[in-house]
Amino acid sequence: MIGVIATLRIQDGKTEEFEGVFTALAAQVRAAEPGNIAYQLCRSRTEPGTYKVLEIYADADALKAHGASDHFKAAGPALGGVLAGRPDVEYLDCV
Amino acid sequence: MIGVIATLRIQDGKTEEFEGVFTALAAQVRAAEPGNIAYQLCRSRTEPGTYKVLEIYADADALKAHGASDHFKAAGPALGGVLAGRPDVEYLDCV
Repeated sequence: MIGVIATLRIQDGKTEEFEGVFTALAAQVRAAEPGNIAYQLCRSRTEPGTYKVLEIYADADALKAHGASDHFKAAGPALGGVLAGRPDVEYLDCV
Repeated sequence: MIGVIATLRIQDGKTEEFEGVFTALAAQVRAAEPGNIAYQLCRSRTEPGTYKVLEIYADADALKAHGASDHFKAAGPALGGVLAGRPDVEYLDCV
């Protein structure tokens, strides 16, 4: 299995819009990706406007399928309009 | 729900012992804590000897129950013998 921690920083005043877009994406990920085990959006308690997504995939193919999915690609423009910069994505090997 | 990212640094030569202790603990957490939704040990790909645990709990009571559980307390001495320092624990609010 593969773990991912994606850190997303959102523009001032855009967090509500971001949460709407991302929770809709997360519902699609959970419903449509059999190789996805967890995809949980979380809000930082210490850094305003910063979110971390906790993700777990069955294997490298499942992670690849996530990035190639129509729903993930479709969310790109809306997310691009609210992100304050490029996401930081950390990949981990599950034990 | 509450998300947790726990970062654990392990002493040189102790990672195999750590993985054995921690995966046994994780199995107990998943089996015995109804309020725990995810508890996944992951190995850093970039920092040797560093692990991150991706955790999700139903609510604050579930997180409290985790910390107060017999299995969590019982793992303390074994983990203390292999950790290279205090864990860094980040708490997050799930969206």
